[in-house]
Amino acid sequence: MEESKASNELVIVETLRRIEPIDSRLLEQAAERQRHLTKPEGSLGRLEEVANRCFAIFGGQMPSVPKARIVVFAGDHGVCAEGVNPYPQAVTTQMVLNCLQGGAAISCLARAGNIGLRIVDVGVIGPLPDHPELARRNVARGTANFCTGPAMTSQELYAALRVGIEMANDAVNDGCELLGFGEFGIGNTTSASAVTAALTGLPAKEVVGRGTGADDDCLRRKISAVERGLALHAEHAGDPLEVLRRLGGFEIAAMCGFCLEAAANHRPVLTDGLIATSAAALAVRMRPEAKDYLFAAHASTEPGHQALLQQIGQKPLLQLDLRLGEGTGVALAMKLVEGAVAAFNGMATFESAAVSDKETESTK
Amino acid sequence: MEESKASNELVIVETLRRIEPIDSRLLEQAAERQRHLTKPEGSLGRLEEVANRCFAIFGGQMPSVPKARIVVFAGDHGVCAEGVNPYPQAVTTQMVLNCLQGGAAISCLARAGNIGLRIVDVGVIGPLPDHPELARRNVARGTANFCTGPAMTSQELYAALRVGIEMANDAVNDGCELLGFGEFGIGNTTSASAVTAALTGLPAKEVVGRGTGADDDCLRRKISAVERGLALHAEHAGDPLEVLRRLGGFEIAAMCGFCLEAAANHRPVLTDGLIATSAAALAVRMRPEAKDYLFAAHASTEPGHQALLQQIGQKPLLQLDLRLGEGTGVALAMKLVEGAVAAFNGMATFESAAVSDKETESTK
Repeated sequence: MEESKASNELVIVETLRRIEPIDSRLLEQAAERQRHLTKPEGSLGRLEEVANRCFAIFGGQMPSVPKARIVVFAGDHGVCAEGVNPYPQAVTTQMVLNCLQGGAAISCLARAGNIGLRIVDVGVIGPLPDHPELARRNVARGTANFCTGPAMTSQELYAALRVGIEMANDAVNDGCELLGFGEFGIGNTTSASAVTAALTGLPAKEVVGRGTGADDDCLRRKISAVERGLALHAEHAGDPLEVLRRLGGFEIAAMCGFCLEAAANHRPVLTDGLIATSAAALAVRMRPEAKDYLFAAHASTEPGHQALLQQIGQKPLLQLDLRLGEGTGVALAMKLVEGAVAAFNGMATFESAAVSDKETESTK
Repeated sequence: MEESKASNELVIVETLRRIEPIDSRLLEQAAERQRHLTKPEGSLGRLEEVANRCFAIFGGQMPSVPKARIVVFAGDHGVCAEGVNPYPQAVTTQMVLNCLQGGAAISCLARAGNIGLRIVDVGVIGPLPDHPELARRNVARGTANFCTGPAMTSQELYAALRVGIEMANDAVNDGCELLGFGEFGIGNTTSASAVTAALTGLPAKEVVGRGTGADDDCLRRKISAVERGLALHAEHAGDPLEVLRRLGGFEIAAMCGFCLEAAANHRPVLTDGLIATSAAALAVRMRPEAKDYLFAAHASTEPGHQALLQQIGQKPLLQLDLRLGEGTGVALAMKLVEGAVAAFNGMATFESAAVSDKETESTK
């Protein structure tokens, strides 16, 4: 076990080492192309930013139609013992099964959007059956309660990070060019809120929201759990790996690894709501250059999300009052990224289409 | 000619007569279904509103994957004589040609989104060739300058409205279930701004923006043109048909007809930026029930757009700082509507998937 921990650690160190910033000259080259396309300058608004950054991420070789995949990581949370969620913990496993049967929201959105979908059991209580879309990579059957100790052991942390890294590698090896991630995990808004408070320094009551629909009593227990967790693990708030190990979850660790490996492989990667973005913010804290590869899919209604988005330097693409997770915002935002890339690749230039450009003299 | 005007008028009256409000019981039925789907209540945010309204629009028979089409109407504007646009007027025709060759932004977005696209010449200066994607329905080669008289004759107005009605009917006959519209027309932000000012009572300088990229001098001429147009046609501001005839354009009239006929046929119809939305707002003024069928694709950066969105009672689905027109916002927003419909149709219920619902008692 100690040996596998050491090997997992090496894999993670190697992933971090491979992440490099994008080339600003390629950003300028993309912006220059935008100026020649048959549209008023800047008129595609945020689609132009998105396309330009994708161009730089791909090293100037933009794929014509990027193959897209969303990986959804599932894990259970020991903090549920504190009564932080109105749904029973068994729902995590039930929702993974529902997703495998095609009945979850993300199943429908991925199908409608022609986006590949993989589900990963990193740490659900289970049991789960064999299924071609399920990667069975269970590190442990749920985390420990962070109110009474660290959520994970170091071994578990590194194993979960490595699951995410391997899932990103699998996607790249399968030819996927546009990546995204989401999660299932009853109780995980509590873990993500604790991570958010630790990363931002904001008090628990400013980052904790109602998640799947906590009533007032449940919300009070949730805030209290986060406060106690923060107090217990306070001296480690400066170390993202320790924040993740002590307050996070298996799916949060795996998403963090996924995000890092996507960046190491020069792939644009879309993050979803509060929980996914807490993983992305941890990745950025570990390696700030990872920010260049990230796109925030949407602005969740969870109160901590905005602070996390600021940490990763991203303005969300969508504002649809989503608060479901699962990668649902990612599935929707991927269509915008695909549109941005399609316009960048496919539009004629003023020269090629013989369209008159803006007159330099006024027309009067 | 008088005879065809009378016949066109009858067609329009008949379209207006057929528009009925959606059934609020169907909205409630859809909301009830949402409560049973495997997600926390309301967690799909605005996608739920969209799906519920689509369900009611389709009379409770939601198509599984709605077939989508965007119709782009093109026309030229006499007000260009006032020096209101930095691009030469020939660009309207050039952009229609560019679009037919697949090089316009909307060509790329429709292709990427698997959305059918039709271009309609309602009133460009031309000339244009035969092309399978082009409907040649030119009413006249550009409107008259609204600063010196009405933009259109009554005959032209009714003919242009009828073009839009027929394009919506063609789409319905071709099995299209989700409709959208956009435009090409150098100078048409000036016409749309004049229509917006007339409909909202706002002063010209609050609704006129830089359109395709007017510099300060050009912007001053644009504001002045709108002010003079409003003054000249002031006594007709209460009559939407006269506002359209005097200040609008052929493509604006056609979009207005399209919008009305889409509503008459119980089809959800997406409106784009300032110009398209000015047409939608005229349609709603003619028949307020048309509002039930409209979805605002996005919030344009043009200053008059927000006031128009309020008039049609719509909150835009996207905020991407677009200001291109052509139906580009519609092409992007259609993917959100498709996602909303897919989730509504395809998600399992708590019962069917054996997922435990929220516990009524707190879990503590």
